[in-house]
Amino acid sequence: MNGDWDLTPDTSRKQRLGFDETVFCASKTPDQINRLVQGALKAEESLLLTRLDNKKFAELSSELVEFLDYDQVSHTAILGRITVPEDRPRVAIVSGGSSDVRVAREAARTLEYYCIGVREIYDVGVAGLWRLLERIEELRDMRIVITVAGMEGTLPSVVAGLVPGLVIAVPVATGYGVAANGITALNSALASCAPGLVVVNVDNGYGAGCAALRMLNVMQRRPPSGEGNG
Amino acid sequence: MNGDWDLTPDTSRKQRLGFDETVFCASKTPDQINRLVQGALKAEESLLLTRLDNKKFAELSSELVEFLDYDQVSHTAILGRITVPEDRPRVAIVSGGSSDVRVAREAARTLEYYCIGVREIYDVGVAGLWRLLERIEELRDMRIVITVAGMEGTLPSVVAGLVPGLVIAVPVATGYGVAANGITALNSALASCAPGLVVVNVDNGYGAGCAALRMLNVMQRRPPSGEGNG
Amino acid sequence: MNGDWDLTPDTSRKQRLGFDETVFCASKTPDQINRLVQGALKAEESLLLTRLDNKKFAELSSELVEFLDYDQVSHTAILGRITVPEDRPRVAIVSGGSSDVRVAREAARTLEYYCIGVREIYDVGVAGLWRLLERIEELRDMRIVITVAGMEGTLPSVVAGLVPGLVIAVPVATGYGVAANGITALNSALASCAPGLVVVNVDNGYGAGCAALRMLNVMQRRPPSGEGNG
Amino acid sequence: MNGDWDLTPDTSRKQRLGFDETVFCASKTPDQINRLVQGALKAEESLLLTRLDNKKFAELSSELVEFLDYDQVSHTAILGRITVPEDRPRVAIVSGGSSDVRVAREAARTLEYYCIGVREIYDVGVAGLWRLLERIEELRDMRIVITVAGMEGTLPSVVAGLVPGLVIAVPVATGYGVAANGITALNSALASCAPGLVVVNVDNGYGAGCAALRMLNVMQRRPPSGEGNG
Amino acid sequence: MNGDWDLTPDTSRKQRLGFDETVFCASKTPDQINRLVQGALKAEESLLLTRLDNKKFAELSSELVEFLDYDQVSHTAILGRITVPEDRPRVAIVSGGSSDVRVAREAARTLEYYCIGVREIYDVGVAGLWRLLERIEELRDMRIVITVAGMEGTLPSVVAGLVPGLVIAVPVATGYGVAANGITALNSALASCAPGLVVVNVDNGYGAGCAALRMLNVMQRRPPSGEGNG
Amino acid sequence: MNGDWDLTPDTSRKQRLGFDETVFCASKTPDQINRLVQGALKAEESLLLTRLDNKKFAELSSELVEFLDYDQVSHTAILGRITVPEDRPRVAIVSGGSSDVRVAREAARTLEYYCIGVREIYDVGVAGLWRLLERIEELRDMRIVITVAGMEGTLPSVVAGLVPGLVIAVPVATGYGVAANGITALNSALASCAPGLVVVNVDNGYGAGCAALRMLNVMQRRPPSGEGNG
Amino acid sequence: MNGDWDLTPDTSRKQRLGFDETVFCASKTPDQINRLVQGALKAEESLLLTRLDNKKFAELSSELVEFLDYDQVSHTAILGRITVPEDRPRVAIVSGGSSDVRVAREAARTLEYYCIGVREIYDVGVAGLWRLLERIEELRDMRIVITVAGMEGTLPSVVAGLVPGLVIAVPVATGYGVAANGITALNSALASCAPGLVVVNVDNGYGAGCAALRMLNVMQRRPPSGEGNG
Amino acid sequence: MNGDWDLTPDTSRKQRLGFDETVFCASKTPDQINRLVQGALKAEESLLLTRLDNKKFAELSSELVEFLDYDQVSHTAILGRITVPEDRPRVAIVSGGSSDVRVAREAARTLEYYCIGVREIYDVGVAGLWRLLERIEELRDMRIVITVAGMEGTLPSVVAGLVPGLVIAVPVATGYGVAANGITALNSALASCAPGLVVVNVDNGYGAGCAALRMLNVMQRRPPSGEGNG
Repeated sequence: MNGDWDLTPDTSRKQRLGFDETVFCASKTPDQINRLVQGALKAEESLLLTRLDNKKFAELSSELVEFLDYDQVSHTAILGRITVPEDRPRVAIVSGGSSDVRVAREAARTLEYYCIGVREIYDVGVAGLWRLLERIEELRDMRIVITVAGMEGTLPSVVAGLVPGLVIAVPVATGYGVAANGITALNSALASCAPGLVVVNVDNGYGAGCAALRMLNVMQRRPPSGEGNG
Repeated sequence: MNGDWDLTPDTSRKQRLGFDETVFCASKTPDQINRLVQGALKAEESLLLTRLDNKKFAELSSELVEFLDYDQVSHTAILGRITVPEDRPRVAIVSGGSSDVRVAREAARTLEYYCIGVREIYDVGVAGLWRLLERIEELRDMRIVITVAGMEGTLPSVVAGLVPGLVIAVPVATGYGVAANGITALNSALASCAPGLVVVNVDNGYGAGCAALRMLNVMQRRPPSGEGNG
Repeated sequence: MNGDWDLTPDTSRKQRLGFDETVFCASKTPDQINRLVQGALKAEESLLLTRLDNKKFAELSSELVEFLDYDQVSHTAILGRITVPEDRPRVAIVSGGSSDVRVAREAARTLEYYCIGVREIYDVGVAGLWRLLERIEELRDMRIVITVAGMEGTLPSVVAGLVPGLVIAVPVATGYGVAANGITALNSALASCAPGLVVVNVDNGYGAGCAALRMLNVMQRRPPSGEGNG
Repeated sequence: MNGDWDLTPDTSRKQRLGFDETVFCASKTPDQINRLVQGALKAEESLLLTRLDNKKFAELSSELVEFLDYDQVSHTAILGRITVPEDRPRVAIVSGGSSDVRVAREAARTLEYYCIGVREIYDVGVAGLWRLLERIEELRDMRIVITVAGMEGTLPSVVAGLVPGLVIAVPVATGYGVAANGITALNSALASCAPGLVVVNVDNGYGAGCAALRMLNVMQRRPPSGEGNG
Repeated sequence: MNGDWDLTPDTSRKQRLGFDETVFCASKTPDQINRLVQGALKAEESLLLTRLDNKKFAELSSELVEFLDYDQVSHTAILGRITVPEDRPRVAIVSGGSSDVRVAREAARTLEYYCIGVREIYDVGVAGLWRLLERIEELRDMRIVITVAGMEGTLPSVVAGLVPGLVIAVPVATGYGVAANGITALNSALASCAPGLVVVNVDNGYGAGCAALRMLNVMQRRPPSGEGNG
Repeated sequence: MNGDWDLTPDTSRKQRLGFDETVFCASKTPDQINRLVQGALKAEESLLLTRLDNKKFAELSSELVEFLDYDQVSHTAILGRITVPEDRPRVAIVSGGSSDVRVAREAARTLEYYCIGVREIYDVGVAGLWRLLERIEELRDMRIVITVAGMEGTLPSVVAGLVPGLVIAVPVATGYGVAANGITALNSALASCAPGLVVVNVDNGYGAGCAALRMLNVMQRRPPSGEGNG
Repeated sequence: MNGDWDLTPDTSRKQRLGFDETVFCASKTPDQINRLVQGALKAEESLLLTRLDNKKFAELSSELVEFLDYDQVSHTAILGRITVPEDRPRVAIVSGGSSDVRVAREAARTLEYYCIGVREIYDVGVAGLWRLLERIEELRDMRIVITVAGMEGTLPSVVAGLVPGLVIAVPVATGYGVAANGITALNSALASCAPGLVVVNVDNGYGAGCAALRMLNVMQRRPPSGEGNG
Repeated sequence: MNGDWDLTPDTSRKQRLGFDETVFCASKTPDQINRLVQGALKAEESLLLTRLDNKKFAELSSELVEFLDYDQVSHTAILGRITVPEDRPRVAIVSGGSSDVRVAREAARTLEYYCIGVREIYDVGVAGLWRLLERIEELRDMRIVITVAGMEGTLPSVVAGLVPGLVIAVPVATGYGVAANGITALNSALASCAPGLVVVNVDNGYGAGCAALRMLNVMQRRPPSGEGNG
């Protein structure tokens, strides 16, 4: 690289927001990723890497790769030991079809990185509604339900009409024709008749995980007087 | 009007397609509508008028209005006696919210004009899914189910996953933001994960009625050998 | 109205989701609204009405109007005594410009209806960033921050980069040219570089309020062992 | 794959809707497809596979491939013996240009899988209208006409103005410029001046086949009294 | 008006292009139009005014109005005597539905202003194709056919496949849903499978007239040697 | 108004950016505007008001109106004496058609408020290119040329290819069909083949004025050594 | 290929429209193209092939290739001897930048196939307007000017304001950002302030050539009495 | 290449606009680029080449390559000695994330080609706002600040609210979902609440550089009397 310029990592994010900066690999070269992993290893820090596809992962330094826990479905890698999450999950992740799993798993891995227990329920799209209805009591117990769906994106609306917890919709760029880029699933979630459904960008499993984390983090704080003692 | 030009009514539509030309009033003046009704009265023909809003209806000739059966919800008027439809409806019309009723009723009136019995089930959107599930057996008996929904347009997909008959989606221009013009509901129906769902233009209750009519008409024909005797 | 059809109110929403069905007045006539308010009065139930503009409010029955607490900025009305909310608000609502207040207030009124204390901080858009920075410590103490912004919709991203709580973006249809319908503000929030920002439909203050309610409701539940005793 | 999660096949679709779950191969790996074919072979079930392009087909297990009837034009494969369809087709499939054939054939293959006789009439676009007009009597005898057209998508409107049966439009992503993604052909079909034309998603030959199947299935039912004996 | 600035009329258009500057009234006040008509009267020049709706026409100075030949369908007015056009029209104007006539007439009036004979054939849309086919020989004799169609805009493609002359498509903003703003009709014409169809902006009857005029003007020039003596 | 909330005017804008906060009247009631004008009068401050249409201006308090210099073309009002601008304008404002003048004048008034001399050259669109070419030397002397154009927005590209100064494009929402909302003119300016053309939002004459002001302000600063002494 | 179906070439196009069916190679395999060329060779017919990119051309049968006149810029091939066109061109083709030449040449080749003389003037975009102005007298002598431009597409509007002949705009998919797919250039031409400009689809050089051919063909006809003898 | 046509380089751009024609390599073959570089070498002229990706650069003639200063981040090459720029930069270039650097560097290289000193400040996006605030005094001293940002594009608005100089926004096609093509960042900048922000096309670092150059060039001119002596 033949220019020289200032780079400014966001060193105070953990204190400010309660979670680490994450390496979004889609716009980085293997070299850049190698250097970031190396740095974290030296500093004995853990690291979450997203959008690291199989091809780019194969190009990383083989010495570093052995320290990474890589998930080829979600294209995420985790540096650092993943501790066993708590027994009783507070977050469910529900997906419509099998092609939504890559995005659902990105949310799951984001939460697992922070040791949040996750219940994963995949392939329960409304084309066969009974599959979702069988699991609905389980979902009603969850504090947060992340719904992941492409094509017409019906699942988030149906779930948000049935469960009381916070429901987060992650639209997925699955399908073809009007569904090709995920915008139909996105708009479907935004326009939902089910009240209080919130939405993140297409394919943004990581963002849904972070939103869940924000909520769980503030729930851990000591409640102000008169709150939380139900 | 100071030009003079050729107008060419489609006089053979009934023989060709099995249904009459209909008067789409949105792009006609009260004068033009008066003349068309007058003409049909003289010829002793029946007539279906759509998109005739309350204001324009009030401007029609009072002599002609008494011959019209006007429905202020669907903005349709029918000239000619509506015979009692058959006892056992073969078409259901299902809508998500109360603001979809104007479009659902346009479909209903189109079928009633041709003496087709219709079962109307309104306000059963997925925000309260139990309302639809209570009626599902009834819907499974129908040959055709017309689903009418605005906002995110979840209803058609859920219905098409539950009933075996032909399911026609009519998206509705209800809501605001990304739902404002009905395109989200339209794309949601087109991208549906439920197989064999067919779709008409936004707010096109009349078109859904005509599609049902096409199917019912060809069902009346004597079946070719080896068909229809199940 | 000359058809007769089935209407199916969602009677179990409170038990299922933890909040009441709300009357969305934009697609209802004054007559329909009068009847709904009358019904709630008789049943001694409270009622939240949204998108009830000044003109339509003026057309309501004067007998009923005296029971309604009407807010002409947010176009909301509340039937039933509003109890004093708790002293220490857990939700902040922040808006960029003065034309966003109508939407911000819809969120505020939705929460007030459920006796949730709200801190309202308006007109702190990034064109004069110091206004927001002065209030940032206050916002960092909140469990939920609802950010309401039209035009380019910068505010949600800036806030979500500075506070640890759940941040909900409500895009607003303010401005002209590319900003006219709120889609720029919407996409800006969805594409945000600040992790974990969640989004609702354009102008959907009510939806943001309901999302906050979902989160606060599940926080009230007895925490599973090992949780919430920080 | 290093997560473990629940997958939930829709086992009751046949009873519910009258047709089997189909394997949409576009979002599946050769491995996943191999396993699904293997499973169907063991269970002695037939199987329809769509969007299985030539390259992916070549990567399937050679042992399994010999059981598959593969059509390289439509990218479909059928497992199980295809019985001879009835003599007299009730469904016609009509396409505008030669590049629409891949989609038209997907509809044809879907119907052939269920032993429905199909009349295929391709390359009769309106640029040379006489080609269609020569076949119009033949088409008027059909219960269902599936029209498949890209570019400006004129064909469905012309056909629906000439034949009384149910006409289903399948827009195709053919062409360039404003025609590139099939949305022009889609909107053209939705906006059609020919009444009762129904539409499926761009390139969705499978969906058109399923819609035809829904209609043919309900026609087989014993008609209620007073119906179907014309 | 309290600013003062330079205005620069295009005084050489006639010499340059072969036709006059036209007054596009949509963006002008009655006062501005009055002054322009007054000026032309004084200069003994003829003038074509377009987009002059009935309401604005009624607000013009009554003294000036008597000099104007106003057509309330096309919203055009002509100042100056319209000479009798030639016997044998060289331009046909064809429209699909009755709501396209306002745009078709704008093209007709533009040509009439320049004394070009026009054959107007309206309401021959493809929903009843026989109407167009009956007139096709007549159209094949024309040098130019202007086709005017809204909704799905099928007519231009069908005509351009049947006649050898220059075919100009004028899309019309008729219909609702995906057809509402004329973009579907526009794209349909642009994507046409019929070769050599040319297109103007939505509702631009004036532009189609000017294009025809350009062609007729250059045809009047003495042909270069070896041309035009077929 | 029945809520009470914090409003936070941007009191330090002048020091920070070099220009005052401006009152964007489109989203304000006459009452709100009256109060803002009253406040400025008391504080003996000048004030620029934009998007104040004739109807809203007529509703302002008649006592206040006499202090306002109102321009009904640009819908701007200025409170405070406008000092005579310098003799030799450094900014030209050029518009294509007469319907662009309202936006061009908004830019002019913004600069006049800050006593910047402006040369206004209107109605020189490329349909009659000679009009622009006659003025081009004049434009080449200007430091900044603001080009204001609707429809296809050709003017900014042509000007930016001919003059060396900073050229700012203001697209205008003029025209119909694809030009209706100004997005075609906007994209045309953004995609320009003329290098260094910069663009503001559709109809944003005020923004173009502010950009010119930013440039003129920094030019007034004492140049660093070795600069500005050409 | 394992289906069998009817294909219906348009054998009467020459008589109907005055030009041959053309082979659009983008959606055809080398095998299909080989067979079509072989067929034309046997029948001793000439043939125009478009969208035949270098890679696909290299895959054609080497025996056939020697009969083809291939142009690698426009991706066209011509079978049959190209006779010398007339001395004095009646059509000019003008392009803005060097990347528009591939499309401009497609128009040129289409006309050359029919022995129409063409004047090609490339790289005269408005970023350096003098280049166009130097050629304008030459262009004013032409009956038809085909203007080919990508990016912001200014060229067609400027030319149509300067020359009296028929001006056809061919937008080109050149550039990036808002210009990437040619829609900005397309809309710019459609919205042009220059009257009578006609437009074809993005990149459709062939269509522009055919439109020119239509006009030249009808000009060859014996003029009706009183016409063409200027 | 088998046609022959006129090419017309813009030889007077330097005199007209103050900067050279630049070689946009994206639409040129290596051969074409080689010839252009060769020509400049012979003429002893300098040359700026943009959009020259690594792969195409590797295909250039090795003899020529040694004369080129190539920057693989910005995909630019410079022919000719780059003189040392002045000590005190007058232009800052600020970017949000590391993937915006390729575009930011294109702007920097464009200015460096003309010996303009540039201060580059990268990776200071608002997700960690403190990074920008630390540099704000430095930015307030600059005459021009070029802000480069993808995703939601917040950075330009925040900067333009804090600094008095001319602020130019360059949107970047970074991200996925609604951010994929840079249109969200573009619209965000256009709709900005910060007054006087100007915008160029997505990824158009070169255009931003040229705009800065235009401003700096006119600042060098001798000021007219009464100006610039602040």
